Amino acid sequence: MATAGEVITCKAAVAYEPNKPLVIEDVQVAPPQAGEVRVKILFTALCHTDAYTWSGKDPEGLFPCILGHEAAGYAECKECKFCKSGKTNLCGKVRMATGAGIMMNDRKSRFSINGKPIYHFMGTSTFSQYTVVHDVSVAKVDPQAPLDKVCLLGCGVPTGLGAVWNTAKVEPGAIVAIFGLGTVGLAVAEGAKSAGASRIIGVDVDNKKFDIAKNFGVTEFVNPKDYDKPIQQVLVDLTDGGVDYSFECIGNVSVMRAALECCHKGWGTSVIIGVAASGQEISTRPFQLVTGRVWKGIAFGGFKSRSQVPWLVDKYMKKEIKIDEYITHNLTLGEINKAFDLMHEGGCLRCVLKMHE
Amino acid sequence: MATAGEVITCKAAVAYEPNKPLVIEDVQVAPPQAGEVRVKILFTALCHTDAYTWSGKDPEGLFPCILGHEAAGYAECKECKFCKSGKTNLCGKVRMATGAGIMMNDRKSRFSINGKPIYHFMGTSTFSQYTVVHDVSVAKVDPQAPLDKVCLLGCGVPTGLGAVWNTAKVEPGAIVAIFGLGTVGLAVAEGAKSAGASRIIGVDVDNKKFDIAKNFGVTEFVNPKDYDKPIQQVLVDLTDGGVDYSFECIGNVSVMRAALECCHKGWGTSVIIGVAASGQEISTRPFQLVTGRVWKGIAFGGFKSRSQVPWLVDKYMKKEIKIDEYITHNLTLGEINKAFDLMHEGGCLRCVLKMHE
Repeated sequence: MATAGEVITCKAAVAYEPNKPLVIEDVQVAPPQAGEVRVKILFTALCHTDAYTWSGKDPEGLFPCILGHEAAGYAECKECKFCKSGKTNLCGKVRMATGAGIMMNDRKSRFSINGKPIYHFMGTSTFSQYTVVHDVSVAKVDPQAPLDKVCLLGCGVPTGLGAVWNTAKVEPGAIVAIFGLGTVGLAVAEGAKSAGASRIIGVDVDNKKFDIAKNFGVTEFVNPKDYDKPIQQVLVDLTDGGVDYSFECIGNVSVMRAALECCHKGWGTSVIIGVAASGQEISTRPFQLVTGRVWKGIAFGGFKSRSQVPWLVDKYMKKEIKIDEYITHNLTLGEINKAFDLMHEGGCLRCVLKMHE
Repeated sequence: MATAGEVITCKAAVAYEPNKPLVIEDVQVAPPQAGEVRVKILFTALCHTDAYTWSGKDPEGLFPCILGHEAAGYAECKECKFCKSGKTNLCGKVRMATGAGIMMNDRKSRFSINGKPIYHFMGTSTFSQYTVVHDVSVAKVDPQAPLDKVCLLGCGVPTGLGAVWNTAKVEPGAIVAIFGLGTVGLAVAEGAKSAGASRIIGVDVDNKKFDIAKNFGVTEFVNPKDYDKPIQQVLVDLTDGGVDYSFECIGNVSVMRAALECCHKGWGTSVIIGVAASGQEISTRPFQLVTGRVWKGIAFGGFKSRSQVPWLVDKYMKKEIKIDEYITHNLTLGEINKAFDLMHEGGCLRCVLKMHE
């Protein structure tokens, strides 16, 4: 390629400080080094984890940085003990570098503005027209796949589907409760429906969510504001003793406790998907576990990025999983601050940004 | 039998009040009603759960009562939704009655002293020469089995073995940590050894326990008092990232947290076996679960009493599991207070009481 070995100057949204509007800047993107790939980003979606780091609550957050990750994904080196275990999708190879906002090879950033480095984020930084990622984080997908759609397979949708299929392993007939009906919660519902769940109970404080949620498989809706008793007790009463599986898709530690305690004695399993603010803790009486409940959590639905994202893309191409239905808004890179406003207003599921005009 | 339909007067150890010495009394044991069996107790062992209820810390504890449960066991009706689930050993049929210290048929006790009722305990009350239990709580075992030994299969030993075999499902090569090296912890070690664990790390504040623990399979010993850093960090450092399985066999909520947090990211599973004091809570950062650790608990090792205790008895008869090695003391019913003192002193694993002289 003409740009091989050259610095590329392109547009990117830079987060200079927590909570201050992102600034579209001309950014210099250095050529990739050993074990790295420079990628042209055509479309990216926004995820609450971007907003979380931007808010300043993420203890690993570094500024200035280029946020964005729902376009590419997570590493899978196939060599570290995590990848080889067959038990987890958490690759260890580049974790130290991505956590520090740099690349592994020289422990430096590939982004800069007039020589001043800008940190990477999650090893992805997709809010830039070009980015540099570690080679172990790049998945090759069907070239026919529409990139303005499958960019969603970089985070939220697989996170929900995988929590059901890989982590909880929901079986036909099961009763499922989902706390929080955003994109991840709706993907949990879709996954639970495809797994044959008999009841899929959506729990959210916004009644408007139920109409949308029905399209993804939610069969019943419960609003905690409609009850005086704790929501776990409401669900236990509704289900003759508790649900078989529950999923926390918010990141609220009180809701995490409720999600565990609404599970059926003897076998109920609760999966934490939401990311809680730093320093917050979950708690419960140990009796909840001694009497047979199981407390789990998962990142990216347990999917291995390079092995399984292409498989998810194929499932979308065969119309076996939804993507289009999660996209409520389409904007451009220049409108990124508006896209974040939409996310916080609640009417938005996923907003896809067109990166080049 | 000559006593069928008659009240039997026999000796029993009565707990009149929390923490006051048990009193050997002449107790009237009423004949069994529908769905009940009157059982002559020949031998019983003591368990920390007896001491827990006796201490007054058990919110379900009722006085006066006859304690004791390590001689018979837990219910299994084979009809309730718990028994039918195939996922748990927690039978629901008689739970309401046994929790209230009475029998289900007429919601009354079968024990009395001069007409004044004495509560049952755990549906067993084995500290009496005769007791009445629900028929769903009686397991028929090999008549050749020595009752002064197999009474231990009523609680502690299966609790440890089953936590490994049924709950954690430890696989060959796994690294295991055991917190607390009493009878349950040693049974965990025995179970882990038979499952092929490569390292079995015993954690206890009493260095003397290591010599005994070696005989049950413990390969390494760690005393938290020997370190300044938290024990979870000690274990993570000793095991290149954490253990595959950990077991809490004490009932201390701080240790439960350490047991979870010493588990390996991505797959480490921690099983709570110990019973914590009422009102105490476990806590951790949800990040521990989101990064792949699993928090579980179990009662009676997940074994179904009527189906599986006879199988455990057979395994003992074939010398496939230990029992004799856990019995450090043999006393009589009349010496029961001394037996509890021995338990609290720490040098005792299991004390078996001979009930008739």
